[in-house]
Amino acid sequence: MIILGVDPGLTRCGVGVVEAGASRRLSFIHVDVVRSDPHISQDLRLLAVYNGLAAKMERFCPDTVSIERVFAQENRNTVLGTAQAAGMAMLAAAQRGIPVALHTPTEAKMSITGNGRAPKIQVERMVAQLLGLSQIPQPADAADALAQAICHALRPAGALQGGEREQHLTLAQRQWADAAHHAKASRHTRGVDRGM
Amino acid sequence: MIILGVDPGLTRCGVGVVEAGASRRLSFIHVDVVRSDPHISQDLRLLAVYNGLAAKMERFCPDTVSIERVFAQENRNTVLGTAQAAGMAMLAAAQRGIPVALHTPTEAKMSITGNGRAPKIQVERMVAQLLGLSQIPQPADAADALAQAICHALRPAGALQGGEREQHLTLAQRQWADAAHHAKASRHTRGVDRGM
Repeated sequence: MIILGVDPGLTRCGVGVVEAGASRRLSFIHVDVVRSDPHISQDLRLLAVYNGLAAKMERFCPDTVSIERVFAQENRNTVLGTAQAAGMAMLAAAQRGIPVALHTPTEAKMSITGNGRAPKIQVERMVAQLLGLSQIPQPADAADALAQAICHALRPAGALQGGEREQHLTLAQRQWADAAHHAKASRHTRGVDRGM
Repeated sequence: MIILGVDPGLTRCGVGVVEAGASRRLSFIHVDVVRSDPHISQDLRLLAVYNGLAAKMERFCPDTVSIERVFAQENRNTVLGTAQAAGMAMLAAAQRGIPVALHTPTEAKMSITGNGRAPKIQVERMVAQLLGLSQIPQPADAADALAQAICHALRPAGALQGGEREQHLTLAQRQWADAAHHAKASRHTRGVDRGM
């Protein structure tokens, strides 16, 4: 199953493509950033983002497009452009009959590190580790797009969305999960540091 | 000059088409509302809005598409969908090479009634009067879309917007602007892009 993740943005729109194989084994396929020139008009910027995303969908034929969910509470200066960029991704997918999934940043962190509040660097290291990359993908938009794709690949069957899953853990489950995470995180940190 | 006005919305997206003739004489051409089913997924709703707006543009071949500007401060429950619907209108216009103008509701009220804070009913009556309609167009989204189109037709000379401004460049100015863009774009590409 090929998943194309999108970290929506008008100036930089991250695109990450992974393949989820048997037993949820993940393979890296592609990462890139679609850009639009901040000095041209909004309609032409949206056209550039749309064309860039549509070209990626044509090239990689994903089974699902997984897009970071945008919230109205976000930075007022950029939230509308971000929402519109997400809209371009949704339209390009819908026109090609590709199902769209929306995941929050918390969901992505949760499925990748087991902690919905994990620091960015921890998420990025896990993205690199899960995909067997020797370096963290740059820029941040590219890593976030891969995280979106991985999040969709790793989501539990019958997945709950948003913060729901975390709320459904018992205290014991949560403590166990936290402990497992810390152990894993420190192992990973050491591992990645050696590799770089 | 044919102007297609858009009052963006995900559930109801108003479309109004007027012709601005000599001496700014206005003629009514068309008014309608493009709808999407609130019970289907967001990507399919955006596709419905995009298809509806694109069909209107194909049918009426407007010289300009005038869209109500969306602000991040608006109703949090609907603002992202509204911004995305506006994005669909911008994309459909940009794909057809139609210049896009954005006007605020205050600008529209100002140019139609002379008062940027005019009550809605006063604006609607003036829309009907200016277009020689015997009744106020229904629903409100339709009247607002006509108001957008009229606002653009009646705007003061020299108030050029967005893509329009680019069209008014001389050939030399345009070539210079293109060269500047390319230089900037290639700098960005060399510096940061990581297509893998």
